Order: sequence, then structure tokens, then C-alpha cells
Amino acid sequence: MINVVILGTGNVAKHLLDVFMTHDGIKVVQVYGRNQKALSVFGKFVPITSDISKIIPADIYIMAVSDDAIVEIASRLDLKEGLLVHTSGSIPMKSLPKKNRRGIFYPLQTFTVGRTVDFKEIPICIEAEDDTDYDILKQLASIISNKVVGMDSKQRKSLHLAAVMANNFTNHMYFLSNEFCEQKGVPFDLLHPLIKETAHKIQDLAPYDAQTGPARRNDKGTLKKHLAQLKNKNHKELYRLLSKSIRKTYGKKL
Amino acid sequence: MINVVILGTGNVAKHLLDVFMTHDGIKVVQVYGRNQKALSVFGKFVPITSDISKIIPADIYIMAVSDDAIVEIASRLDLKEGLLVHTSGSIPMKSLPKKNRRGIFYPLQTFTVGRTVDFKEIPICIEAEDDTDYDILKQLASIISNKVVGMDSKQRKSLHLAAVMANNFTNHMYFLSNEFCEQKGVPFDLLHPLIKETAHKIQDLAPYDAQTGPARRNDKGTLKKHLAQLKNKNHKELYRLLSKSIRKTYGKKL
Repeated sequence: MINVVILGTGNVAKHLLDVFMTHDGIKVVQVYGRNQKALSVFGKFVPITSDISKIIPADIYIMAVSDDAIVEIASRLDLKEGLLVHTSGSIPMKSLPKKNRRGIFYPLQTFTVGRTVDFKEIPICIEAEDDTDYDILKQLASIISNKVVGMDSKQRKSLHLAAVMANNFTNHMYFLSNEFCEQKGVPFDLLHPLIKETAHKIQDLAPYDAQTGPARRNDKGTLKKHLAQLKNKNHKELYRLLSKSIRKTYGKKL
Repeated sequence: MINVVILGTGNVAKHLLDVFMTHDGIKVVQVYGRNQKALSVFGKFVPITSDISKIIPADIYIMAVSDDAIVEIASRLDLKEGLLVHTSGSIPMKSLPKKNRRGIFYPLQTFTVGRTVDFKEIPICIEAEDDTDYDILKQLASIISNKVVGMDSKQRKSLHLAAVMANNFTNHMYFLSNEFCEQKGVPFDLLHPLIKETAHKIQDLAPYDAQTGPARRNDKGTLKKHLAQLKNKNHKELYRLLSKSIRKTYGKKL
């Protein structure tokens, strides 16, 4: 049995509690949080505290707080034992206080209130300063996920930036498409199956090979007609730059 | 029974033949194509011809050819009867010859060789010059899809541009993310579950509300660090512009 304390009451904390509670090999012995209202939701399932000095002994302390808060909260912790990890993609392990056994437990996924995700599929990137701690993290991660990956802080930082491109920027494309549909009075939800298929396609096919559309074909007629259709300055600028980037990508091989 | 002739031997033609063959109410009586090699694949299942003067009578002639070829092939057709439609998002119905009964049969999806798609979920946008022809198209489309939508050429053109943003540009984001992963030596496939979840999320949540990440939070520290990590000039420029676009989107409400 691995005893865990979760620090934080946000989305990641909530999803971790949910998945930990479904597995016999893990026991969440306490949740710490500063936000009383958010914390009270956790109190329905496990012991809680908002007093950092009352944190109880555990094998692993998982900080699921915002990037900005990691260093400050970690510095106020007074752990007698156990392994301290955080769940951030971009903060180095060495940002945690040196006096602690330190590690990383980074689930690579976007978590939304009210949406359940299948943890078995989510890659968990782990890092630790020594082998014993690495093994403990691996044991914990393997209980909830089939995809556990050892990774140093530098690689994790790169992966996090790649995730921003693949998730945040992609979602912004959905938004721009949605905004354009609203302006033109066509229902955006007609695009849902296309959006799903675009994402599923690259599970088998490299994005380089999956690319289609007028920019890939360098179909200047359509590119020009599309630009003429776009009245919004921001849409126009992004359409131009993204088409240019696609043309450059495939132009190399022309 | 609706008798159909398919004109074209590409991806869309192949996917249409596949789905038409699984339904009793539709009979593909012939496939016409200029590319003998591609055409021969169709010949395993249905009658074929590469001679445009030998096209046989049918209720509906579906042109599944590239946008550039539509006008030229349509002008060479000599149909005694039946309804002529094309499957393009961006070509107006009126581009088809006036002497024919004309219409549109536009399945809004990206089709890839070897990937089966669930047609039941694919929106089919239809248009016709008169009500009887509209009803025939509606009947055909409803056999294969649960989502049949009447739409004029102007709306369809808008939807097609929205699809370019939501599909082509999104796939390019995947590509850039993949390219960056390769440069940094981290496995891109770790991002697959994130990419799937990002696409699935907006089936329930508007993209505006689904947006996360440093640009949405206007987290200047992270944005600066990310820009410093990007060495590729193209990555840098796109990162900057997309982050700016996201900041502007949410800045409105700050």
C-alpha cells in the first residue's frame, strides 16, 4: 500500500484523487489546501487540512498546485519523511527544496472539471533523484497508467512546450473556426466529426503525411479566395502565416 | 432503389463506393475514371468505364474529382437524364452546366486511404435547384448518414473555410509539435492521448471555454521561457502570433 498526501484542490488534484480512490494499492491519507471551499469537496472522501503544519506522514506528497505556487508552498513544508513531487510540466525538479527527497509525477493530459479521463492511457512522466525513489514513483504511476516514462527535467520542459502547441494552439484553431462559423451563420458543430477524425488520424499516420488542404497542394486560387472571404484582420493574418508555414514545410520537398 | 454513377477514382470516390455498397437502397451501377490503374480497383466490385461517352443511365451522377477537374469533366458529360452533383466544399452548384439538373452532395470529412470512417456521423450538406431533386438527394444522404443538412453554396463555402482552419491548420500544429519533439529527442506519441482529449473536449464545451495554457492566463514568465526554448524561426513566429491571438481573445474580457 502506498500512502499519499495530495497538496492542492484544483483540477489535477481532483482527478488524481478520483483515480487513486479506485485502486486498492493506493491510499490517499490526506488532502491539503488553502481554499476552504474547494477543500471541503475533498473532505467528503478523505481527511483534509488547511493547516500546513498538520500534514501527516506519507510515502509520497504530490503537489498539484499552480506553477507559481510550487516553490512557495514547498518551502513552507516541514516533512520528516517521504518523497516530495510536483505535477508540473515546466518546473524543474531542483526547484523543490534540497532538504527533501525530490521527484516529479507529471501526467501529460488536459484535465477539465466534470470530464472523466481514462488514466490507463495517460502518459505519466516521472523523475527522481535516486533509484529507490524512482522505483516508488514507478510503482505508483504503474498502478494507474499503462504508460509510465522516465524523463529528466529538460526533456519534460520540451514535452510541455510541444503540448502547448498540440493542445492550446490547436484549441485556438477550433475557436477561430467557431468564431468564423458564427460570423457566417453556419453551425460549428457540423465540424465535430471532422475535428475528431483529424485527431484520430495522427495516431496511425505522422502529421507530415496526414496534411491535406489548399496550402499543402499550393492551390493558389483557393488560398486567394479564402483570404478574400476573411474579413476579420486576425483571421486573415493567421490564415496567411499558417498557409505560408505549410507551404514552406512541403515546398522543401518540391 | 437509387441508381448511382460515381465519377472519379480518388479517396472520396472509394469511400463513397464502400459505404454505398453496404446499403440495400443504393446501387452503384458504374464508376467512371480516367486513371486506368485506379479504376481497375473499382472494377472488382462494380461496372467501370474510362470512356465518358459510355456512361450509363442513373438517378444520380456523383462527381468525386478534384476541384480543378469539376468544370471540365462536367462539360464533357452528355447526360440524357438524372441529377448531376459534385462533392466539393468550395465550388458553387452553378459551376455545373446549366443544361443538367444540378445539385451538391458534400460529405464534411477528411478521407484517408485505408481508414474507415463512420458515415452515420458525417454531416452531408446537400443542395439542389428544385425540390424534387433536393428530396432525392436527401433520400440518398439519409441512407448513409444521420446528419443531412440543406445548405446553399455560399454557406457551404464558409463551412469549407472553417474546415480548413479546424482540420488543415490543426494538423499543422500537430506537425510543428512533432517537429519540435524530434529536435528535442522526446517521443511525440506521448502527446497522442492529449491530442485526442483536446478534440473530444469541444464536443461538449465551446472552444472559447476549453482554452487553457500560458497565453490564456497571460502568464508572461512562461511565454518568455517558451520563446527562449524555440530556436526554429518559424516555430518562434507562430508561437508569438498564436499567443498574441489567444491573449487578444481573452483580453477582451479582462
